[in-house]
Amino acid sequence: MKNYDSVEYEISIPYKLSVHFTHNIFSAKNPLLCDIICSDNKTEPRKVLVYLDSNIPESLQEQVLTYFESYDRYLKLSCLSSLPGGERIKNNEAHLKCIYEDIDANSICRHSYIIAVGGGALLDVVGFASSTAHRGIRHIRVPSTCLAQADAGVGVKNGINYKNKKNLIGTFQPPVAVINDFSLLESLPSTEILLGYVEAIKVALIKDGEFFNWIESAMDELKNRDSDAVKELIYRSARLHVYHIATSGDPFEAGSVRPLDFGHWSAHKLEQLSNFRISHGEAVAMGIALDTIYSQLSGYLEANDSERILTLLSRFNFSLYTEVFRQKNPHGNFCIIEGLQEFREHLGGELTITLLNSIGRKFEIHEMNTDHIIEAINILEHHEKNRSH
Amino acid sequence: MKNYDSVEYEISIPYKLSVHFTHNIFSAKNPLLCDIICSDNKTEPRKVLVYLDSNIPESLQEQVLTYFESYDRYLKLSCLSSLPGGERIKNNEAHLKCIYEDIDANSICRHSYIIAVGGGALLDVVGFASSTAHRGIRHIRVPSTCLAQADAGVGVKNGINYKNKKNLIGTFQPPVAVINDFSLLESLPSTEILLGYVEAIKVALIKDGEFFNWIESAMDELKNRDSDAVKELIYRSARLHVYHIATSGDPFEAGSVRPLDFGHWSAHKLEQLSNFRISHGEAVAMGIALDTIYSQLSGYLEANDSERILTLLSRFNFSLYTEVFRQKNPHGNFCIIEGLQEFREHLGGELTITLLNSIGRKFEIHEMNTDHIIEAINILEHHEKNRSH
Repeated sequence: MKNYDSVEYEISIPYKLSVHFTHNIFSAKNPLLCDIICSDNKTEPRKVLVYLDSNIPESLQEQVLTYFESYDRYLKLSCLSSLPGGERIKNNEAHLKCIYEDIDANSICRHSYIIAVGGGALLDVVGFASSTAHRGIRHIRVPSTCLAQADAGVGVKNGINYKNKKNLIGTFQPPVAVINDFSLLESLPSTEILLGYVEAIKVALIKDGEFFNWIESAMDELKNRDSDAVKELIYRSARLHVYHIATSGDPFEAGSVRPLDFGHWSAHKLEQLSNFRISHGEAVAMGIALDTIYSQLSGYLEANDSERILTLLSRFNFSLYTEVFRQKNPHGNFCIIEGLQEFREHLGGELTITLLNSIGRKFEIHEMNTDHIIEAINILEHHEKNRSH
Repeated sequence: MKNYDSVEYEISIPYKLSVHFTHNIFSAKNPLLCDIICSDNKTEPRKVLVYLDSNIPESLQEQVLTYFESYDRYLKLSCLSSLPGGERIKNNEAHLKCIYEDIDANSICRHSYIIAVGGGALLDVVGFASSTAHRGIRHIRVPSTCLAQADAGVGVKNGINYKNKKNLIGTFQPPVAVINDFSLLESLPSTEILLGYVEAIKVALIKDGEFFNWIESAMDELKNRDSDAVKELIYRSARLHVYHIATSGDPFEAGSVRPLDFGHWSAHKLEQLSNFRISHGEAVAMGIALDTIYSQLSGYLEANDSERILTLLSRFNFSLYTEVFRQKNPHGNFCIIEGLQEFREHLGGELTITLLNSIGRKFEIHEMNTDHIIEAINILEHHEKNRSH
């Protein structure tokens, strides 16, 4: 019997990561968006679908319409639609299906463009639809919250929740471009601006001690949402995130390491256990606090550094403790501990948790001590009580 | 106001395409599957989900169970499940959700393995689930039909139908490996073996005239499903398909060119118009015949070559004509013509259709003449009538 050799090839798929910073993206005077799209060198106007987060003031709709009229030689607005912002959009697949319907009804093709303007959750859902309809339609992300501009919006991941499990379904698909429009932040309430700082603090903690020092020094300006300070924070945070994705050697996370998710194993679980009443930003602040104390309790991080981190988070008004930390399963065990296993499953392979050696320096461990986690929770509760007195 | 420069990086994601050829993949004596999985160098047994096409004889289930028992040092069978084969699995998202359920219920992670054994439709659905659950779980494809072994199973695409639109939702995601197990073909009815030849004929027509000559010369053996001839056909077809994907410069189809889809624009539409009563293989044979005659009518292909192609298809018992070609929409126009527009949408950008210059030599056009298409349909009808007399 004849034997047939295996057929083997190595292929490599190139992607460009690009994040732009601008103001008033949909002002007719601002050519950035049109320029980015027109770099495809087509002659006919490209079909464009635009999705706006319902949390964005309605006046933007008018701006979008006017913008597309001004650029109608190059762009054809096929559909302008509003979708709910916040985590609920990721929990209800009806929204995903709406996007597929629009794509089908408007004969959108792989060379058309889908633009999502919104918070991280909306970007995740529209990004997932874009990456799967026709096996991938060109996609542009315009993050509209401080959190999304500093972090979630500039990544290569998207996804939806399934049965309340965060991001159980998703893809890796870099958008054609991310456009951070600082003007979109103006209408946000201050609480939401401050919420956005948490991922900047996170990336500073694991990658750039000098950036952390700057955040400390710019605390007052940041709390007062001084626009120069906010922009600087977003720019530096976004740049660190993208730099990490591009240079870590594993942008689509084939391995088990995910240092950008510092503090996230418990954060994801807190979101889920609270039925998403605790927002991602709030949960990440608690998750960072927990793993900071854990780093200290395990002898890796000095008390002084740990204290600086907790103080900074507290001064930005983040709660560092919630009763949800103490929720128990029917077997009487802390539900939060299950988050470790779920985090491992989501990453795959070995459990890998990022901890801190010092401010700006991270390392990885592959096992966590449950007693230390409980002790860290006790410390957080105590810390929070002292603060409110 | 400070201006912030764009942050730009180029990244590149490496993939391996590999297709193996074997017999009795689930015989305990055959280490191939386990060897492929164990190249990940883990120490603990990997969790594996296995999906079997309901068209495969049930005895395979026993074999799978025995196989995993034999290799339990390396592999842990978390779930063995049967799914319906054929296009219906792509039309009903309940099956996709079943797979997500299994993944969630069995705590499958990105480093686990999902093995699909089945025809092209089942591979498409399991592949889509694998590529989206946890943003991508390792996946191994074991095509069980001649068609899938020669073509669909060895590609980098997967997908499901949406609202009857073929592959409206899907991803590009090369599996860890494709394993073509010739033994799986033994239980297939001869009509199905012959159906599988169509994609081999297609790839021969566009890329390898010598392979077409061989198919002509091996006609009798192939019709009698002589096992050496069938294997040779599958091997050469699979190799040509993979070679094309790896070397065409656009494996994830960012452009508009898709020469491997010769004859497919009308084939997809025939499948849809017939509500999938016409199978993919049957539809592709008609689509190839249509574009062959079209190539001739447009003056690109010599009559002699065209005749050789139609004769070969007819001698393999493919119908080259169906009344579905003449189905009209409410406006009185041929529905099949709409397939051109849908094909363009699915590919994106400019319409690009592959035609033949000669046997083994293809070229692309960007517009089709409707009158020539109708004339080609008339010729096919005539050809088919003559044949039945």
